[in-house]
Formats: sequence, C-alpha cells, structure tokens
Amino acid sequence: MALSTRVNKNIARMEYAVRGPIPQRAAELAAGGLRTIACNIGNPQALGQKPITYCREVLSLLDAPFSLDRERALRRVFTLQPAAFEGIKIDDLVSEHALAVADEFLTRLPSGLGAYTESKGLAFIRQAVADFIDKRDGVTEDNGLRADPELIFLTNGASEAVRSIIDILIADPTDGIMIPIPQYPLYSAAICRAGGEQVGYYPDEDAGWTLERSILDEAMARAMARGVKVKAMVVINPANPTGAVLPRESAREVVDFAEEYGLAIIADEVYQENLYGAEFVSFASLVGDRDIPLFSLHSTSKGFYGECGRRGGYVELRNPANIAGGNTNFCDIMLKQASVSLCANTTGQALVYLMVRPPPEGCDAHDRFVRERYDILDSLHHKATLIRRAFDEMEGLKCFGRTGALYLFPRLEKLPPGKTDFDYCMSLLENTGLCTVNGSGFGQKSGTQHLRIAFLPPAELLEQVLPEWIAFHNDYVNGR
Amino acid sequence: MALSTRVNKNIARMEYAVRGPIPQRAAELAAGGLRTIACNIGNPQALGQKPITYCREVLSLLDAPFSLDRERALRRVFTLQPAAFEGIKIDDLVSEHALAVADEFLTRLPSGLGAYTESKGLAFIRQAVADFIDKRDGVTEDNGLRADPELIFLTNGASEAVRSIIDILIADPTDGIMIPIPQYPLYSAAICRAGGEQVGYYPDEDAGWTLERSILDEAMARAMARGVKVKAMVVINPANPTGAVLPRESAREVVDFAEEYGLAIIADEVYQENLYGAEFVSFASLVGDRDIPLFSLHSTSKGFYGECGRRGGYVELRNPANIAGGNTNFCDIMLKQASVSLCANTTGQALVYLMVRPPPEGCDAHDRFVRERYDILDSLHHKATLIRRAFDEMEGLKCFGRTGALYLFPRLEKLPPGKTDFDYCMSLLENTGLCTVNGSGFGQKSGTQHLRIAFLPPAELLEQVLPEWIAFHNDYVNGR
Repeated sequence: MALSTRVNKNIARMEYAVRGPIPQRAAELAAGGLRTIACNIGNPQALGQKPITYCREVLSLLDAPFSLDRERALRRVFTLQPAAFEGIKIDDLVSEHALAVADEFLTRLPSGLGAYTESKGLAFIRQAVADFIDKRDGVTEDNGLRADPELIFLTNGASEAVRSIIDILIADPTDGIMIPIPQYPLYSAAICRAGGEQVGYYPDEDAGWTLERSILDEAMARAMARGVKVKAMVVINPANPTGAVLPRESAREVVDFAEEYGLAIIADEVYQENLYGAEFVSFASLVGDRDIPLFSLHSTSKGFYGECGRRGGYVELRNPANIAGGNTNFCDIMLKQASVSLCANTTGQALVYLMVRPPPEGCDAHDRFVRERYDILDSLHHKATLIRRAFDEMEGLKCFGRTGALYLFPRLEKLPPGKTDFDYCMSLLENTGLCTVNGSGFGQKSGTQHLRIAFLPPAELLEQVLPEWIAFHNDYVNGR
Repeated sequence: MALSTRVNKNIARMEYAVRGPIPQRAAELAAGGLRTIACNIGNPQALGQKPITYCREVLSLLDAPFSLDRERALRRVFTLQPAAFEGIKIDDLVSEHALAVADEFLTRLPSGLGAYTESKGLAFIRQAVADFIDKRDGVTEDNGLRADPELIFLTNGASEAVRSIIDILIADPTDGIMIPIPQYPLYSAAICRAGGEQVGYYPDEDAGWTLERSILDEAMARAMARGVKVKAMVVINPANPTGAVLPRESAREVVDFAEEYGLAIIADEVYQENLYGAEFVSFASLVGDRDIPLFSLHSTSKGFYGECGRRGGYVELRNPANIAGGNTNFCDIMLKQASVSLCANTTGQALVYLMVRPPPEGCDAHDRFVRERYDILDSLHHKATLIRRAFDEMEGLKCFGRTGALYLFPRLEKLPPGKTDFDYCMSLLENTGLCTVNGSGFGQKSGTQHLRIAFLPPAELLEQVLPEWIAFHNDYVNGR
C-alpha cells in the first residue's frame, strides 16, 4: 500500500540561516583541519568566554546536595592548614554565599533538580523573576504595576517561549505577526511553522535602525491590503541581527501603535544587559498601566552569563485578557501547552533564579561576580570596537546603530556584479576561516546586502584575522 | 480596530489529563494543609527517590570544571588525615571514576556545558548512545545492523522528540497516527496540535494488554473507512498508562503489520529498565534488516534514574529513507526543526551520556551504582506488589498485565450508578489525599472505567494509605 509522500509543508519550507549552508561548510573546513572562527552565532562560551564562577558554584551544589557538608568541612580544614592543599587557594573553594544560596534553594525544593516542576516553572523562581522585573523598572509596591508571578513562564531558553506564543496566536492562514526586517530567523521560522503570515516592518538603517510611526503604518497598510489580520508585533531590543539599541522614542512609537491597533507586543529583550553604555528601556515600563498585551522575553544565554547550552529563559505576560481579542484565556492555553512538555529543564530554571538574584554587596561572592561581569562586558565592547574600526578600512562597507547585543550588521554597498552577500560570506569563510551569516538569512530589505558577525572571538584572534578580512574584502569587492 | 478573538483551535482543544483538574484540586488541598500523595505522574524524585550518586557527582564536576583540582587535593588530604574532616567519610568524596569521566568529557568538550551544541546533540554522546543500543540488542560489528549516530537526536526529554516527529509527519488533516488505547496523553495532544487524526487500537486488557493481528487490522479498517491515511503507529513498551510489558509475539505482530502497510513505528521505550523480571524486546532488534521506518525513544526521566526535571532524552531513527513514503529526507527536516530550538539542554545531554555508560566493573563507583540501582528497582517492584495486593481487597477492581513501567491501571467494574472514574478519582483524592488519574484521561475503551496510579510513594506511606483506600473503595462502590 502506497503511503503519502508528504510531510508537514510548513516545516518543510521553514528556513534557519544561522545554522544553514555557511556554518555547514565551516564544519567541513574545520573537519579538514582548517582554522574556522564561529562568528555565525551568539555562543560566547564556545569562543572561550568563561562562565560566571558564582553561577557554576551554585549549580554544582544543587546537582550534588550531598556535597554541601563536605564543602563546609573542606573549608574548615583548609582554613586550619592551607599548606596541606598544595596549590589550592581560598578562592578555589566554593564561596560561603554559594553554599547559603544552595542551602536555601534546597530548603524551598527538598526534592532537588531531579523532579518535574510545576509546568510554569518553580513558584519561588517565578516570584524572584517578578521582583527582578519590578526592581529593574523601578516599580514600587504601591503603583499597581508589579509583575505577577502567575503570568511568568520559565522556558527552555527564550526560543521555546517564542514558538509557544506564535503557535497559539496563529489561528488561521491569514493571521499575521509583524516582525522587524532584518530579524532573527527564529521568528520567521516560528510563523512559517504555525502557518501564519509574516509582515515585515523596516527600521531605518541610515538613522541607526530607529523607528518612526510612518514605518509601522506602512507595514500595517501593506498587511491589510493583502487581507492579513495582524495580531502581534515583535520587537527585538537590543536588536538581533543588527545589534542596534532602540532609542526610547522609537520604543514609544511601538507602544502607541500597538495600542491603536489592538496588537500584542512580543518584546525580545534577551540582550538587555548587552548595552555597552547605551540605555535600555523595557517595554513593560513603557506599557505601564495601558491595557496593551505584552510578552517580554529574557534568557540566561546572553548578557554576561552566556549559558546558551543550559536553555534557561522566561516570558512575562502583561494584560493577557486582551490578547487575541480577549475571549480566550491565553494564559490557560499557554499553561496547557507547557503541561504537555511537563516543565522546562531545572538547570535552566535554576540559572534564571541566579540571574535575577546576583550576589548582593557584602557577601563573599560579590566582588568576584562584579569583576567577572565587568571583564566580560568590557571585553565584548572592546571586540566590537576593534571590528568597527576594521570596517573603516573596508571599501563600501557601512555599519549603523549604537552597538548592542553581540552583533554587528554592516551593509555591503560594493559587491562585484552578480555577487550576493551569501557569495561574499562563503568566500570570506573559505579565505579567512571567519564564519558569518549573510544578511539575506535575516530577510534584509530588498536590494541591500549585509552580513552579521558575532563579536565573540578572543581579541588576540580578532587582531590576527581582521587584517586578513580587510585584505580579502578590498580584493573581493574590486573583483581581484 | 477589532481583532480576531480566535487562537489556534488545535491547541485550544488539546487535552492533557496528567496535569488536569484532579492534580489541580490536589494542589488546592495541599495548599490548605492536607496530606496529598502525587501518584498522578511518574515523578520519582518528588516522592523521595534518591538520584544515582554517580550521575550527580559527574554533573556537579561538569558544572564546575574548576573544582576538579580541588576535589583531587581534597581526596589527597583526606586520605592523610581523615579525622580532621569530622564526620565526613571516604564515601562522601567524589569517586575517582567520576573525576576521570568528568575529565574525559571536558577533554572532548573543552567549552563545557555552557555552549550551544550541535543541533542534534554532541557527537560523542550520540556515538555512546549508538554503542549502548548495539550492546543492548546484541548487534556486532559485522552484521550490518549497527545504530548510526547521525540518525540519533538528543532532545529535551522524549516528549520533545514525540512532538517533533508528529509535527513533521502530519501533512494534512486526513493524516493519521495509530495509538494504543489507553495511551499516554502526550500522543493525543501532539496529534491534536498538529491537526491530524488519532486512530486508536485496543490492546486486549483481559489477555494482559497483549496484541493480536486482528486488533491492528480492525483499527486500520476503521481508519480507511473514514478516509484517514495512517502514516505511523505508536507503541509504548513497557506501557503507559497500563504498566504492562508487551510480549515478544505482540511486538512481532506490530512489526509485520507496519511493514505490510508501510507505516513508521514510533516505539516509546522510555521504561525499558522498569521490567521487574519481565523481558524487554526492543523494536530495533525486531525490525532487524527489514526496511521499516522506526523511531525509538528513550529518556533519563524513568528507569532507576528518575531525573525527570533534567529533560534528557533521545530518539534513534532507522530506515528514515522510507519515512513518509521516501521522497523527503525526513532526517534533514528533523535537523532543521531541531536547529530552530538550537539544541537540547546540555545537562540532559550529559545525563544521557551517563545513562548509556554506567560505571564499569572494577572502578570505585561501580558497587555503589549497582546497589543504588538494585535498591530503587527492588523498591519499585515491592511497592507495585503492595498496591496489587490491596487491589485484591477492593470489590470489582481488576488489574491486568505483567507489571512494568511505573504504573498500575486497574479496571473499576463496580461503580455506583451515574458515577464515572473521574468522580471516583476525585473522591479518592478528597478522602485519602491519593492523587491518581482517571482512565478517561488516557482515552480508555468505551464503557470501561479505570484509574492510573504511579507506584512511587515510599512503602511506609503506602502501607498507611492503602487500608484507607480499601475502606474508601468498598464504601464508594457500594454507594455508602
């Protein structure tokens, strides 16, 4: 009996360039012994960024609760006779603060990390997330704008939250989601998979990837003209792939626009710590007491944590009663969807807890934490600056926007006839080992050419490869 | 402007009883201070099952690679002067084998657990999984039936694999998946969400939940009569919710049937260690060299590990060229789908590695590992036996099948007029604190009534509550 040859057409036509042909070619080159540098993805620890010691100390204790007593005994014996431990320093011992936090965590969760949790994630972690959001946004007890732990879901990275939200929002093939162009391809992939319509809006590159109302109106008019019902709009701030930090005025335009059209805002704020001096304005703070449905996303993968592999993240909902028109309890449907997956992984949940409760001043983990955080963010800023400087020596290459996130997204204004940014990135890889992603992988504005580079390789490696890139570039664009 | 009020109808109508109204009521009772016993879900560590020490030792070291040297120094100093460590015993130290395994792991993966991995999961772990499968099934180098690491995907628990497979398989609303009735509601939920058709087949309860060819033929005829194109069939062995272990002859019927109709087999084998003396026959071994597409699933959540919260699991594909008719590269589509989520969480991946490579004889972690494994499995068997014995004292209650997995699924043959198994389970909860799931939550055969109980509570607690259940039962069924 002959079977249908078809599989789900939405999944079959879905695209995801960040792990597409260029990184696949890089893997082949690396297997052949060539030096390749993975700048195609924001994966800091793969390029040598060290994890935050405090987080790892606590995770390690949570994995092995039986080691708490042993660590305390070790600390006691070490204090009495440090010389016996040849080469081990006091800093190599687990901090008292990590011991106290692990102890408290396990008091709240006696079964430890091995059990399924509530589908939404552990209640005390969701409360800690709510407190973090309130503190970040300067929300006090009495102004009625506090985050609600019952509207927070802990997820396997922010990606899982995005897929869940979009899967639920898309009710039929004419439902649409507005996304910035260029965008992180998770969004186009999720919309494609859910069988909905992607409606692009185009931040103004030459003005530093900012937004004006006319940009949003133009996208909405286009959607309406083709019969698409827009239900939500995605904003990524700081942005991926452009790295640009959205100015407060642009963010305000988004909120006004969403209110006027009854849209939910999906605010991807996973790079909220990657600012390098710029100001971050959360969408929660801009929405304030207005009845605008908001999903805001955060993650343990970015910032200075870089714990990508752990798949820790959360989404906070505001005004869920208004989502999708208000006749459905959106939060209940999200909960049901989460229940089928049982719960987000507990290591990721624990990391979210640590992210929202950094070691306070005065404890023995604080100074080291602050130093490690500073070193990582400072080094990222330095590396972004090195790359931007190299851009100045590349013909016909321009990079806009205030540096944020982990990416630069320069425009290639000069390419040999018939060559695309994909060709350029593939040649760049073959010639220098630098693995980047072509702008077309992010759905760039028609007629433009770009690339995205994650500014993560060690500075010494950048200093070595940037001159090679400059030479490659100026040869390539001149057809040499 | 008015928005559509609709959300995705498939997700809105999806059901998931394991975390439905009865467990929700249990949470309310618990919040009110009542003793409740969570037998609604296979979540062993929540009910006091201890994690395997060896696994936790290695995870703890992988989280804190900087502690490897410290642990070695500690071991050295301890050996010289154990008395200084007041109360700490040599067994409280990390085993030498755990240190060696962590060292080797980090040599293969110098960036550690914080980086995204390949979308399929770390290559050396997939190789270890392939070796495990071959060893389990007695496959040798030269018979051409070895598992292929490139056809193994590491996933966030087996649940994620199931959703991914079903999402891809369902191409249109007349595509169907055969599932056993009763079934684990993940399957009905995944099929519903993907917008496909569920085709139930009915293992013979009175014959111990076994299968004969006529049962499968009947289901296929029913599907064809209503225009459903069956693409795959799910087998859960040992079964959830019935706990029954499928005899070899029944499994052979499935393989012959799948071959004849060109179906893929989705073999949920996550309870393959939960046998209590019964024989486990893998579908990979039964498929052998026949060209039958097979997905086999395994997990770190069950067995004697019980690491549910970690979300570790894998799926192995066989004969993917024949899946969905052979014109599509199913494995490539699965890879693309995995890429969008970036990778499965690394703690779960590491646990899969530890599961497929238990400590070998002769190392210092072996004896303790074997003892802990024995104690857990023996205790599970003992608890299942206690409950089955209590069943003998309950009027009109019968339990079929060889005990396996973590569940018993007795049939309630005597209920007061108008009462359903849902009513029974809710009353059982209110009266004794025992939280079970009604059989209707698993889609039982029309006209029958059941409940599922996970045999996980500590034996002392069972010995206390079982007499209460017997008394409740005999009162309830007699309308007292």
